[in-house]
Amino acid sequence: MKEYKSFFRNTVDEMAGYTPGEQPKMLDLVKLNTNENPFPPSPAVLGALESFDGSMLRRYPDPMADSLCSAIAQVNNVTRNMVIAGNGSDDILTMTFRAFTAPDKPVAILEPTYSLYPVLAKMQEAPVIKIALDENNNFAMPGDILEQAKDANILIITRPNAPTGNTFPKEDIRKLAAEFEGILFIDEAYADFAEDNCMDLASEYSNVIVSRTSSKSLALAGLRFGYAVAHPAIIEGLNKLKDSYNMDMLTQRLAEAAIRDQEYLQTTVAKVKKLRAELAGELERLNFKLIPAQANFIFACPPDEDGAKAFKFLRDHAVIVRYFPGEVTGKYLRITVGTAAQNKRLIDVLEMLYK
Amino acid sequence: MKEYKSFFRNTVDEMAGYTPGEQPKMLDLVKLNTNENPFPPSPAVLGALESFDGSMLRRYPDPMADSLCSAIAQVNNVTRNMVIAGNGSDDILTMTFRAFTAPDKPVAILEPTYSLYPVLAKMQEAPVIKIALDENNNFAMPGDILEQAKDANILIITRPNAPTGNTFPKEDIRKLAAEFEGILFIDEAYADFAEDNCMDLASEYSNVIVSRTSSKSLALAGLRFGYAVAHPAIIEGLNKLKDSYNMDMLTQRLAEAAIRDQEYLQTTVAKVKKLRAELAGELERLNFKLIPAQANFIFACPPDEDGAKAFKFLRDHAVIVRYFPGEVTGKYLRITVGTAAQNKRLIDVLEMLYK
Repeated sequence: MKEYKSFFRNTVDEMAGYTPGEQPKMLDLVKLNTNENPFPPSPAVLGALESFDGSMLRRYPDPMADSLCSAIAQVNNVTRNMVIAGNGSDDILTMTFRAFTAPDKPVAILEPTYSLYPVLAKMQEAPVIKIALDENNNFAMPGDILEQAKDANILIITRPNAPTGNTFPKEDIRKLAAEFEGILFIDEAYADFAEDNCMDLASEYSNVIVSRTSSKSLALAGLRFGYAVAHPAIIEGLNKLKDSYNMDMLTQRLAEAAIRDQEYLQTTVAKVKKLRAELAGELERLNFKLIPAQANFIFACPPDEDGAKAFKFLRDHAVIVRYFPGEVTGKYLRITVGTAAQNKRLIDVLEMLYK
Repeated sequence: MKEYKSFFRNTVDEMAGYTPGEQPKMLDLVKLNTNENPFPPSPAVLGALESFDGSMLRRYPDPMADSLCSAIAQVNNVTRNMVIAGNGSDDILTMTFRAFTAPDKPVAILEPTYSLYPVLAKMQEAPVIKIALDENNNFAMPGDILEQAKDANILIITRPNAPTGNTFPKEDIRKLAAEFEGILFIDEAYADFAEDNCMDLASEYSNVIVSRTSSKSLALAGLRFGYAVAHPAIIEGLNKLKDSYNMDMLTQRLAEAAIRDQEYLQTTVAKVKKLRAELAGELERLNFKLIPAQANFIFACPPDEDGAKAFKFLRDHAVIVRYFPGEVTGKYLRITVGTAAQNKRLIDVLEMLYK
């Protein structure tokens, strides 16, 4: 073979890709690192899978995922033309960055937040404005966020935030929607586990996009399904950027079954919240400092503020959590709320270290 | 709601999205418009679907689709690090355009060819160099293609081409691989139906990418699965640009079952080729002028050279084919090879018009 020479755009050669949380193939690990739901998807999903006629797969799926999007619209009390479905909410984020960021269109994000955003910005060669959250005040937003974000074409608020797990007052978000001169993207991947959400702002403000995912609350991380709700003109623009057939036929069918079963969703979420409260109590008993948790994980600082040590100790004892190196985040662990048995195993191991 | 104002990049506001072929919801139509396989997917796919444990969907899939990519590598006799899987080959194309096109990195494509390419170029604000095929010589490539493409960073050869259905001499492609100063992307969506393919060039030349899809020959249009084979450094770069979990768990499992069943693939392809020859004979009997067909469709010019009229007449009689307006393409119909019964229905309707 002749010698390799790169024809990539410079930015691609320069950038590092996103590193997803580890997906180990050993199934006997206690896996509390990627915020999966400890409970299975709705029986309606399993039923839809069982009754699916595989021979239909020779046909293309509906490119607009119309039946699924109608179900999303109905559940969220918006019109069909305010909805777009994606191959995971990562697909929604990819479209969004391609739509609204560029070298002359910066994006503003929180710090710390979901580490995929800067990777997507880099692909677009778009400047990133990082707005530091106040660690000493449970990672609250700064009072001058509008001033800090004023040059951005899009501001992303992750609510509840990851990896910190806290939320922000809804009135502050409403103020941002009204006063920010650009797109306000509210990433609600974890909103089902929170006290409230901002879905209604997508109907009230023409510059607001609210995104959701099925990976956490709907227990469908394996299926890849997310969606966004926004003004019809925003949805129309995003539709131009999506892959023509971005949602496969099985995903459309199963995702619709999941989203229509709101009763199962509420039951599962209630169980996770109860487990979260119990886990928080145990961690506090071991003198961890916790950030008030509104998602299906807890951002917890061990008594010695050494996240790396706790992470490694857990790993050595077959319990995986997520650790983010960094001056601030490196003090913490991000622990997914598991089943009662998984949470107990986590606490038992931590007790060896911090008894 | 306050008045809508666009925050999109200008190019997004300006562009029109890609228009996929019609996917009608009426199932009694004879649907010969999107090159789906008339036969169902392999029994191995249906078996994998049946035995899939739906409760696993709460977990994230393998982000690198390792088991599937290993199967692809094995079938194509390349190493694992030369393979990337995509959510349909459209996903592969999206990554490719994001990787290798930009305002200062033009793309060269054939004319006519797959109409998605210019849409993807527009998203990247990349110039498009169109290389006209010679209609009077069965849409052959021009002799000066290297000269015409010399300013492009990437040259896309669709082989067999769409919508024309013809192929190009492999020695000419090998010459392009050796002499073109940029990426040579060979889109082999339809190669399983052709006499030969260029997969070996991906191992021989470090600037060649060969892409395949499951939509046609593997009868899995509904599933969304495509892949690319190239030098490991190219695959490494494309991996940075893909959505972290672009392949869902069911797709990984079912696609692997499909690609491992090469015997079923060969049997199905042989049946389609036989039907293609029979259909071509019937169209020639009706005095259609045909382009030599190497894909699972036929590009056919009716005796009066009025593609629009034939398209409409078929549509009125519940037979859908694909029609591409344009000075050259507007003279033709692109007819997917269907089952014997579907092809007969098509011919019966055309016979009313051209008896």
